Amino acid sequence: MSGPARATAPCVALLTDFGTADGYAGVLKGVVLGLAPGIPLVDITHDIPPQDVAAGAWVLYTTWRNFPPGTIFLCVVDPGVGTARAPLAAFAGDRLFVGPDNGLFGHVFAEAAPARAVRLDDPRFQGPGRSATFHGRDIFAPAAGHLAAGRRVEEIGSPLAPAGLLVTPLPAPTREGATWVGTVLHADRYGNLITAFGPHLAAAFAAAPGAVLSLDGRPIGARAATFAEGPAGEPFVYEDSSGHLAVAVRNGSAAALLGLGRGAIVRIAGL
Amino acid sequence: MSGPARATAPCVALLTDFGTADGYAGVLKGVVLGLAPGIPLVDITHDIPPQDVAAGAWVLYTTWRNFPPGTIFLCVVDPGVGTARAPLAAFAGDRLFVGPDNGLFGHVFAEAAPARAVRLDDPRFQGPGRSATFHGRDIFAPAAGHLAAGRRVEEIGSPLAPAGLLVTPLPAPTREGATWVGTVLHADRYGNLITAFGPHLAAAFAAAPGAVLSLDGRPIGARAATFAEGPAGEPFVYEDSSGHLAVAVRNGSAAALLGLGRGAIVRIAGL
Amino acid sequence: MSGPARATAPCVALLTDFGTADGYAGVLKGVVLGLAPGIPLVDITHDIPPQDVAAGAWVLYTTWRNFPPGTIFLCVVDPGVGTARAPLAAFAGDRLFVGPDNGLFGHVFAEAAPARAVRLDDPRFQGPGRSATFHGRDIFAPAAGHLAAGRRVEEIGSPLAPAGLLVTPLPAPTREGATWVGTVLHADRYGNLITAFGPHLAAAFAAAPGAVLSLDGRPIGARAATFAEGPAGEPFVYEDSSGHLAVAVRNGSAAALLGLGRGAIVRIAGL
Repeated sequence: MSGPARATAPCVALLTDFGTADGYAGVLKGVVLGLAPGIPLVDITHDIPPQDVAAGAWVLYTTWRNFPPGTIFLCVVDPGVGTARAPLAAFAGDRLFVGPDNGLFGHVFAEAAPARAVRLDDPRFQGPGRSATFHGRDIFAPAAGHLAAGRRVEEIGSPLAPAGLLVTPLPAPTREGATWVGTVLHADRYGNLITAFGPHLAAAFAAAPGAVLSLDGRPIGARAATFAEGPAGEPFVYEDSSGHLAVAVRNGSAAALLGLGRGAIVRIAGL
Repeated sequence: MSGPARATAPCVALLTDFGTADGYAGVLKGVVLGLAPGIPLVDITHDIPPQDVAAGAWVLYTTWRNFPPGTIFLCVVDPGVGTARAPLAAFAGDRLFVGPDNGLFGHVFAEAAPARAVRLDDPRFQGPGRSATFHGRDIFAPAAGHLAAGRRVEEIGSPLAPAGLLVTPLPAPTREGATWVGTVLHADRYGNLITAFGPHLAAAFAAAPGAVLSLDGRPIGARAATFAEGPAGEPFVYEDSSGHLAVAVRNGSAAALLGLGRGAIVRIAGL
Repeated sequence: MSGPARATAPCVALLTDFGTADGYAGVLKGVVLGLAPGIPLVDITHDIPPQDVAAGAWVLYTTWRNFPPGTIFLCVVDPGVGTARAPLAAFAGDRLFVGPDNGLFGHVFAEAAPARAVRLDDPRFQGPGRSATFHGRDIFAPAAGHLAAGRRVEEIGSPLAPAGLLVTPLPAPTREGATWVGTVLHADRYGNLITAFGPHLAAAFAAAPGAVLSLDGRPIGARAATFAEGPAGEPFVYEDSSGHLAVAVRNGSAAALLGLGRGAIVRIAGL
C-alpha cells in the first residue's frame, strides 16, 4: 500500500494556552496532518490564560469524557517547557493523552488511572527542528500524529511508571464545625462561578432546603434549576452541567456582579 | 458492515455564544464525532455575545446559504435553556437546523420556510447525562450527530407543525413622509455598520445620486464601491457583501468614529 | 462517477483578519466544502489585526513549512479588496497560496520562489454572487475549493509572471559601526518580543558571551535557553522557535514590562 495510512483515531482534540493570534495552534495541526492525513482535529480551547496549568486542568477535566474512546488529547500549557518535567504520552480512561506531566492531566488521571505511559524522548518520533521553547511543535504534535496514524503508546518513547505520573484530585471541600468550606474552581464565559462542591454535596444541598451557600461571606439566598428561572438581577445557586454547585445571574455575570473569580471562598451552612 | 456508519452530511456548522475559553464548543464537537465519525465540523462563530439571540440570528442569516445543501447547522444561543421553548430540528432551504426555537432561526425561516420539524424530546437520541443547563451537550449535539450519521428529522423527535416555528423577518425600513427609516442591524469586526436597507432599497439608492443616508442624524456624504476607494478618515456608504447598505471608514472603524452600533437609526432622504 | 470528487489536497489552511465573531471565516469554509467535500480545514488564525498585512505576512512565514506539501493556504488580509492588486493563486515551496498579491505572501515567496501563478479572473471559478468587498467569499474561497478538488493552478485563472509577484524579504538587521541594528518583528500572545535577528546572527550571538542586546536603548543582560531558566521578573534573551533572537519574561510579558511592540529598535553590541 502506498502513501501514509489513513488515521485510525476518531480525532485529535487540542487544548493549549497558545491563543489564536500567532498561528501556534495551526502549527500543531499542520504537523499532525502531515503524519496522520485526514484525522479530524477539534479545538477544545486555545484560550487557557498563559501558563495557567490549573485552568487547563479544569477545562480538560470537564470536557474529556464527551469525546469518543480512542480520542487523542494534545494538550500544551507548559511553563516548564525544556526543563525536567516529562513530555508524556499516556493511555487512560480509553483515551490517549499527550503533553507535559505538570498537572495538566492531574484531574483526569485522578478519575481514570493511567494504564500505560511513556516519556517522549525518541528522536525518531520528534520533529526535525528541535527547539528548547516549542515542544508543542517539536515533540507533542509529532507524538499525537504518530499515535493518530496507528502507533501504540509503547512504541514512541521510553516507559514511564504510570503510578508516578502527577495526579491532582479536585480540591475537595472540607468540614469546619457545622460548615463545609471550599473554593470557586472556575469562572466561565457567562460569569458563572463553579464551585468545588461536586455531585455528592450538590445532591445533599438539593435535599436540604434550609442549607445556605455563601460566596466570600455573602449568602446566596436563591436557588433555580435553569437560568431563566433565576430571579432578576440577583445571584442564585444552580447545579452546573459539570455536576458542581455554581452561582449565576440571569442574563448577567455573577463573577462581575460579585467581583469574584477562581479561588473565592465558598461556604455551605446547614448541610 | 461493522462499526458506526461514516457520516453522510457534508458538514456540521456550529454557531453559539459559548466563547472559546471554557471548552463548551469542543464538547459539542466531541459528542457529534462520537455519533458521526469523520463528519467535518465548521465553526461559524462561538463569539455571539452571551444570550444575544438577535446577534446570532443575523450571523446565521448572512452565512447559511454559503454552506452546501445538506449541511447541519448546530446553533445554541439559548437564554431560555430548560424552559418551554422547543428544542428543535427542522429541514428548511435544503439544510438542517438544530437548536432552540427562540428566534435564532427566525431570519432563515423567513427566507426558507421549514418543511419538516420535530421537538427533540426522544431520550433515545439524547445524551446520557441530562442537565437542565447544557442542552447543547445533552440534546442539540446528540441530535446533530444522529442527523449527520444519516437519521432523518422525523426519526429523532415528535412532530412539530412547521408553520408554528418562530419566524422573524429582518426589520424592514419604513416610509415616513419623504424619508425611509431603518436601523443598524450589525456592527462587524471592522466597525462596519450594516443597515436594514437590503438589496431592493440598496439598488434604488445606487440609482439615486441625490439620495442621502444619515446615521443618528449625521449625513454620510460619501459613497464608494470598495473600502480602498473610500475617502480618508471619513465615513462612507457602500453596499455590503450581504447586499445591505452599510457605512465604513477606510482603514478604520465607523462604529468607533461615530460611536454607534446595532439599533442606531438610519434615514435616507431623497429616495 | 457521480457527485463531486473527494478532495486530494491534505488540507486548506486559513489565515485572515476576519476575527471570529461575524461568521466570515465560516463562510469561506462553507464555500470550500461545497467544492471539495471532506477537505480538512485548519485555522492558522483569523485574529490578524484588521488590515495589518505585515502581521499576516509574519504569521504565515513562521507557520507555512509546518504544513504538509500540497497544503492550500487561503489567506485574506486585504485592505485593497476590489482594487488593482491581483487576486492570486501560486505554487511555491511545494504548496499552494491563494489570496491578494499585496505582500501577504511576501516573506514566503522570498524563501520559496513561486513557480507558477495565475490571476483569479475566470468567472467559472468564482462564486455566484460577486461583491466588491468580500473577495474571500467570492473569489479566494472558490479558488481554494477548486484547487482542493484537484484543479491545477493553471486552469483557474490567467497566467501571471511568477517573477512579478510581490516579494518582501524579512527586514534584515544592518551594521552601524560596531553595532547591529534591527527591529522587533512580532509580539506574541505571551508578550515575547521576536526580533529581526535570525538564525545566522542568533548563532553568532550565542557564540559571543560578551555581546549585549538592547531593546529601545535598554540592555537586556540575561540569557536563557528555556523560559523556566530565565531570571524572575526580568527580561532575558532566548532563541525563539522561529530561529530568531527574542526577549521574554518568565511567567510574564516582556511586551507589557518594557512597553514595547513591533517596530521597537533592537541593537546588539559586541558581535
